Amino acid sequence: MKIHEFTMAPNPRRVRVFLAEKGIEVPYQQVDIGKNENRTPEFLAMNPMGRVPVLELDDGTYLAESVAICRYFEEQQPEPPLLGTDAKDRAWVEMWQRRMEFGLFEQIAGCFRNTHDYFKGRLPQVPEYGNLCKQAAIERIQGLDGELAGREFIAGERYTIADITALVAIDFGRLSNIRIEPEQKNLARWYQAVSTRPSAKA
Amino acid sequence: MKIHEFTMAPNPRRVRVFLAEKGIEVPYQQVDIGKNENRTPEFLAMNPMGRVPVLELDDGTYLAESVAICRYFEEQQPEPPLLGTDAKDRAWVEMWQRRMEFGLFEQIAGCFRNTHDYFKGRLPQVPEYGNLCKQAAIERIQGLDGELAGREFIAGERYTIADITALVAIDFGRLSNIRIEPEQKNLARWYQAVSTRPSAKA
Repeated sequence: MKIHEFTMAPNPRRVRVFLAEKGIEVPYQQVDIGKNENRTPEFLAMNPMGRVPVLELDDGTYLAESVAICRYFEEQQPEPPLLGTDAKDRAWVEMWQRRMEFGLFEQIAGCFRNTHDYFKGRLPQVPEYGNLCKQAAIERIQGLDGELAGREFIAGERYTIADITALVAIDFGRLSNIRIEPEQKNLARWYQAVSTRPSAKA
Repeated sequence: MKIHEFTMAPNPRRVRVFLAEKGIEVPYQQVDIGKNENRTPEFLAMNPMGRVPVLELDDGTYLAESVAICRYFEEQQPEPPLLGTDAKDRAWVEMWQRRMEFGLFEQIAGCFRNTHDYFKGRLPQVPEYGNLCKQAAIERIQGLDGELAGREFIAGERYTIADITALVAIDFGRLSNIRIEPEQKNLARWYQAVSTRPSAKA
């Protein structure tokens, strides 16, 4: 078993943090997106979408999509639960994970893809759209500050995959100058808590 | 228990088809997005994101996000399995569901939101970005035709949530003139199979 990934990209970090929380160690193999190593025929045979990470299982299965990889490991090793504890809680955690994914992570990624020099000349960029994404991310961050007034973590009193998605998104946002504001005290308290867990270094 | 939804919108249809496949009946209450009924204080108290569908449970919990709602019902009534049958298969189905969601559904929705008259004056539109979404959707549809050469359904030999997401996306694509091309025989065969299941009318 190994994971094909790129340390600098945000999606692979979601899986690394998830595995660190579980205490699971998997060998990593780097795929340099900056050198288009994710566009080679060999890589596209593993994942036709050209995205990292990809989990290679011992039976030769290639499993892509960060959250699908996380779900695989959650079932292999349920403790500590990061995707919820019973039917209702699993749906609740999925709701918050998806809110963080669509409302925050995808907006921050959309801003980066459409405005940052890293992709200039490599992807078609629409800066006007990137700026709308940035605005949406800033509004979601403000909303999150209010939501965190009443609870310790994003989906409730327990650390979950929703916190991982939000942490990785917010750290990724720095590259686009999207940040937690000083007056967002609840969010700052949450960020302090999740970013100092040992898993955050993964 | 009831579901707050809008029959004309694509995300609620994903849940309706899912429930029809399970044979589960839940009362529906309409929220007219065209009249901004999803922006009222009452609706935002249920779902601060202002999105449909929202599942209202008998204990007063409001569960949003289509796939989270589907997961809730999958656990309440596992048969027929639409999210996979064991740990590896559940991850595999999630991978394909997410590929259909990000590569197809979100691209078609991005095209509609940014180019269609329905949202003119209601949302900031960036037609140049919408056209990129359309191109990405057309390429993913072409990829899907190749993938369906070797199997009956999107995630393998069994109908799953990945087929539901793709069916709803492709039907929604008509509004943006995104269609299955006559030469895409595998995709046409799949579409014929999934769109004639009784659940497709839900």
